[in-house]
Amino acid sequence: MAGNTFGTLFRLTTFGESHGYAMGGIVDGCPAGLALDLAAVQAELARRRPGQSSLTTSRKEADEVQWMSGTVEHDNGPVTTGAPLGFTIANTAARPADYDHLKNTFRPSHADFTYEAKYGLRDVRGGGRASARETVSRVVAGAIARQILATLGVEVGAYVERVQDISMPLPPSFHSRDEVDAHPVRCPHPETAARMADRIADVKKAGDTVGGAIVLVARGVPAGWGEPVFDRLHADLAKAMWSLPATKSLELGSGLSGTLMRGSEHNDKFVDRGDRIGTATNRSGGIQGGISNGEDIVLRIGFKPVATVLQPGTSVDREGNPVELKGRGRHDPCVLPRAVPLVEAMACLVLVDHALRQRAARLTFEA
Amino acid sequence: MAGNTFGTLFRLTTFGESHGYAMGGIVDGCPAGLALDLAAVQAELARRRPGQSSLTTSRKEADEVQWMSGTVEHDNGPVTTGAPLGFTIANTAARPADYDHLKNTFRPSHADFTYEAKYGLRDVRGGGRASARETVSRVVAGAIARQILATLGVEVGAYVERVQDISMPLPPSFHSRDEVDAHPVRCPHPETAARMADRIADVKKAGDTVGGAIVLVARGVPAGWGEPVFDRLHADLAKAMWSLPATKSLELGSGLSGTLMRGSEHNDKFVDRGDRIGTATNRSGGIQGGISNGEDIVLRIGFKPVATVLQPGTSVDREGNPVELKGRGRHDPCVLPRAVPLVEAMACLVLVDHALRQRAARLTFEA
Amino acid sequence: MAGNTFGTLFRLTTFGESHGYAMGGIVDGCPAGLALDLAAVQAELARRRPGQSSLTTSRKEADEVQWMSGTVEHDNGPVTTGAPLGFTIANTAARPADYDHLKNTFRPSHADFTYEAKYGLRDVRGGGRASARETVSRVVAGAIARQILATLGVEVGAYVERVQDISMPLPPSFHSRDEVDAHPVRCPHPETAARMADRIADVKKAGDTVGGAIVLVARGVPAGWGEPVFDRLHADLAKAMWSLPATKSLELGSGLSGTLMRGSEHNDKFVDRGDRIGTATNRSGGIQGGISNGEDIVLRIGFKPVATVLQPGTSVDREGNPVELKGRGRHDPCVLPRAVPLVEAMACLVLVDHALRQRAARLTFEA
Amino acid sequence: MAGNTFGTLFRLTTFGESHGYAMGGIVDGCPAGLALDLAAVQAELARRRPGQSSLTTSRKEADEVQWMSGTVEHDNGPVTTGAPLGFTIANTAARPADYDHLKNTFRPSHADFTYEAKYGLRDVRGGGRASARETVSRVVAGAIARQILATLGVEVGAYVERVQDISMPLPPSFHSRDEVDAHPVRCPHPETAARMADRIADVKKAGDTVGGAIVLVARGVPAGWGEPVFDRLHADLAKAMWSLPATKSLELGSGLSGTLMRGSEHNDKFVDRGDRIGTATNRSGGIQGGISNGEDIVLRIGFKPVATVLQPGTSVDREGNPVELKGRGRHDPCVLPRAVPLVEAMACLVLVDHALRQRAARLTFEA
Repeated sequence: MAGNTFGTLFRLTTFGESHGYAMGGIVDGCPAGLALDLAAVQAELARRRPGQSSLTTSRKEADEVQWMSGTVEHDNGPVTTGAPLGFTIANTAARPADYDHLKNTFRPSHADFTYEAKYGLRDVRGGGRASARETVSRVVAGAIARQILATLGVEVGAYVERVQDISMPLPPSFHSRDEVDAHPVRCPHPETAARMADRIADVKKAGDTVGGAIVLVARGVPAGWGEPVFDRLHADLAKAMWSLPATKSLELGSGLSGTLMRGSEHNDKFVDRGDRIGTATNRSGGIQGGISNGEDIVLRIGFKPVATVLQPGTSVDREGNPVELKGRGRHDPCVLPRAVPLVEAMACLVLVDHALRQRAARLTFEA
Repeated sequence: MAGNTFGTLFRLTTFGESHGYAMGGIVDGCPAGLALDLAAVQAELARRRPGQSSLTTSRKEADEVQWMSGTVEHDNGPVTTGAPLGFTIANTAARPADYDHLKNTFRPSHADFTYEAKYGLRDVRGGGRASARETVSRVVAGAIARQILATLGVEVGAYVERVQDISMPLPPSFHSRDEVDAHPVRCPHPETAARMADRIADVKKAGDTVGGAIVLVARGVPAGWGEPVFDRLHADLAKAMWSLPATKSLELGSGLSGTLMRGSEHNDKFVDRGDRIGTATNRSGGIQGGISNGEDIVLRIGFKPVATVLQPGTSVDREGNPVELKGRGRHDPCVLPRAVPLVEAMACLVLVDHALRQRAARLTFEA
Repeated sequence: MAGNTFGTLFRLTTFGESHGYAMGGIVDGCPAGLALDLAAVQAELARRRPGQSSLTTSRKEADEVQWMSGTVEHDNGPVTTGAPLGFTIANTAARPADYDHLKNTFRPSHADFTYEAKYGLRDVRGGGRASARETVSRVVAGAIARQILATLGVEVGAYVERVQDISMPLPPSFHSRDEVDAHPVRCPHPETAARMADRIADVKKAGDTVGGAIVLVARGVPAGWGEPVFDRLHADLAKAMWSLPATKSLELGSGLSGTLMRGSEHNDKFVDRGDRIGTATNRSGGIQGGISNGEDIVLRIGFKPVATVLQPGTSVDREGNPVELKGRGRHDPCVLPRAVPLVEAMACLVLVDHALRQRAARLTFEA
Repeated sequence: MAGNTFGTLFRLTTFGESHGYAMGGIVDGCPAGLALDLAAVQAELARRRPGQSSLTTSRKEADEVQWMSGTVEHDNGPVTTGAPLGFTIANTAARPADYDHLKNTFRPSHADFTYEAKYGLRDVRGGGRASARETVSRVVAGAIARQILATLGVEVGAYVERVQDISMPLPPSFHSRDEVDAHPVRCPHPETAARMADRIADVKKAGDTVGGAIVLVARGVPAGWGEPVFDRLHADLAKAMWSLPATKSLELGSGLSGTLMRGSEHNDKFVDRGDRIGTATNRSGGIQGGISNGEDIVLRIGFKPVATVLQPGTSVDREGNPVELKGRGRHDPCVLPRAVPLVEAMACLVLVDHALRQRAARLTFEA
């Protein structure tokens, strides 16, 4: 109830502040019998890690997972036992002193003011619990979820579709990780990626930041995942995406453009796909009535520009007195490349949760 | 876990199918001591009721709430006791036979196929549990939540900002119910409302449907509501809005346009408002770090055109054989006017839940 | 969170006060495809109903379930669709005026004082939400759960083992409903039942009440139901039993007597049962490490004597002034016979919940 | 849902196996502003720690808490920020090889068989997740909860009332920690404590084990904590106590003896206590209708003898073949002295949770 747990049957609970001792979490509800690929988890963290390229913050963290529990060693490595998976990630690059000048000042569009309003006090070091560093634990859990999905034939991929006004000239579709990670900006369209990188470099030089949009596609999700009414599959995906630090907009399937169409054009006609019933178009984004229909699940998430700019500005202190302010510390000019693994992680968490929930839908379970 | 409960401390659980015996629900966690205005609840239902004008479906339901529990009579009417409020709303206009022809057919962009995929069988009558009639119970609960919010000085108002491509020429802001309900299309800008009504009439004549966008504004929310990380106030609002039947997009504050700005323009500078610290602009939409900052909370929700069109079409049956299909039954050419009270109801549910959750945030509670 | 919901995957939420409009509830998470025997549900209610014999309160309620939702009609009757089952039971025998004299008085060992302390006001009519009439909704949900368990080969039976100091001379074991219901006192040992009935008649004549103990046995539960650590199968059973209105003690398996043994005598040795591994004794009561082991699950629940006695007494009013008090209204001299179906109902709710939860325990689900 | 989380508003989630890398947990929902006494937490762990005296297992663990998050340093030490408190406790004395001989054998009255039945595989090292070592994390969280309760004037104390058939000659009442911890057996009645210690020594010599009973008393709990119907205060306490590894029985207030009385003797008459309304007797054990009434909360928990005895015995292997077995490893002849802090910890968790939940009970909150 205090907001640090996500999911129902497959649950992640996290802890940690940007400049505290360590980040970490507990994955509870991981089914027993999963041969865990720990290197793959570490690889996901590497995708999120700061300092990957000149496009991202220079804060460097090893971000190595220390596993605490939940597996036994079998011939080919660790296998989950059904017990909770505890893990920590050290905060080796913590520099709390960087933030001393902010003790009495609220940075604009950060959570400084609201945390203090809520709790009566706040952890001034790097935003404390509100720091995006918190997402490191989500990536760990998401990487486990991804491995469960793989056993079910489900793939989840995201990519940067737009940086500010520079957008890919193609409709949303699944792109492989190789395509996406080929360029550090994580846009699978090389020319667009190059233009995006230039823009980010310009903006960085100006001490400024930019946002944009990420597309997420999940393919191979069988028809039938999702719950009616409140826990619709896309409602849980929406909550997941809006729980990320910089989300400003979300679209499902046809999204905004769908709201401009007439019903007669917007409807996805059912067609026989041989082995399954499919739809001729996918304006529904793979979800109808809150439940997956077997088509690709397609979301577009818009992110705002990062709030910390390295330009002088003004704010107020606790008493409302004006103060001069200049962004310091190590920050990203554009979060989108590093947000790609976050978006994927959150989608994986939601999908595994609903895969497990689906097992309770019928009196007679059919695998 | 089966998807029919919403909220944590203030919880709504609902039941009912479009053409079953009755709709209804239970509100659990309503604080004791609320003098309940039952007429106001009924008035909210009237705003959602079909058949209000020529713009909406001709299905007519009295939609009278039968209260079951949770109050005692005091001098000025019923007062909540802390016990759960049970209620039902009869389905007097049920015409299940209207749907017999759909037994073996999946209507495009409806939940027919996915419900059958999930459960192995489905209630063919009017979409069963997937029908938008289910939202009637949300309006009841939302109306109770609204009365709690009123005691806290919070007002929630929504309006139709756009129908297809016809959009209000003004930025999002709070409009009173009188302004909004002055025109049946529920757009508070009279000229735009008239154009919208014309468009809806045209579309209806063509047996077609249109979507658009609704803006929601909550004002008076004090700084400090919302939880960190996963249960951010806007994450819960997002889940609420995406749990509505036709949502295609969601924006918070500056929304999509915010993703095009640079950080230096996008940031909301803090300013001294005398009695409180405020922000000069409100691109954050009243929420920072997942927690309310005291400014207006501003959301924009895009809705798709209703799937049921009164035009001939094609689909497939259970075996994948092509079938001819024509929309029948009583349906709305445009759901937006009737969706206004739904959006408000869901926002009220989320806000009351977080108002109660906030009471647990500090060791010493200050009212 | 407000206490009126029970269960995780199979959930019951209830509402209703003793002398309000109606009792009722919502069963959410009932798997689709269950052919529901509504007459069997009604028969369970008849077992709980007051006025069954001279041993119980003379309040008479038809206690007919009005079903609201959640099923479709198939050839042989209603089948669950996966949608929530809403139901109500009218309070036809409400006599609120019986309680007017209690407005300012707290009855001893009732919830009058504590509800007022909690909520600041209370529903004085028959104890309001604290009335045992609330359990009628549990019996409905339990009867549905029992039907699910039947498809899994699980039987749940309870009986009165002891009334005050009159106890069956046999160790706990499964007794069929025919045996149990053969005598209105619901003790399957005829001579003991007769002595119990005499005691209850004596006590009733004296305007007094008695308690005793009920034994519950669940047989056919497969090994593997239950969760580690906090949601042990017996922890959830314990919560279920302690949520009943008059519980004073609970024992699992060897219970109190087990706490007097040495470990060497208490241990249940594993033995080969041919088709499964069993234990030679069952001091564990069918649960080890919080998880069922395939043996009978055996609980003993002690109930206090009903608080309402028809003898003059004293209490205090809101200001602490002494007041004379005499029990009025219609009450049971001994709740145990009517508590038998309640105990069974709660056990069925817990068992179905864990049956569904077990489906998420392994990566590869085996039915 | 996977059983490793306890509580609703004040929540503990734990991880760790007996012989894994580390134990640990996350406390979420700890109100901000609590000046945390870390030494007091460590002291609670010392009370639970093995090897305290010859009466307990010789396994020695430092059991030092490593704090990960959730506090900021103020002048007098760490203060909670409202963020989750993550912590670990290393397993420095792990000796997994001690358990190799059990790979194919199920120890009687342990969880070996049931975990394998549930998950299809198990962690054979020291019982894995089923080990009582798991309770170390509960003691950490309980110690934090105790500090919150102290600010509310609530004290929680438990003691060993009975070992096998050796019982204190006094009715349950509050005893200070000094009294309880004066003797390593944790019985505050010196003569009885001495007899208990002799019994335990005898039993240990014989390679056997004994159980008994612990009494828990919470004093200072104000009237009004607890929720109606399912989440009664004693239902949540019951779940808490039955989640401990060796619980066999539970009694509230008058307990079993209350079930032998008549209602006229059993009722607790209300009396004016000057500053509050109290009861002349406390057969209700401080809880009426599921809600605290301001009197002492009194529970008695019966524990079975530990299953691991150092005597030869027989069991079966996976295929049902008989095997010889002899208890090895380091185990307690009597868990009760070390269970005292566990019982207190669980009670503290439940009480804080309900203290926070009570804040949502009324429209106008009064501290």
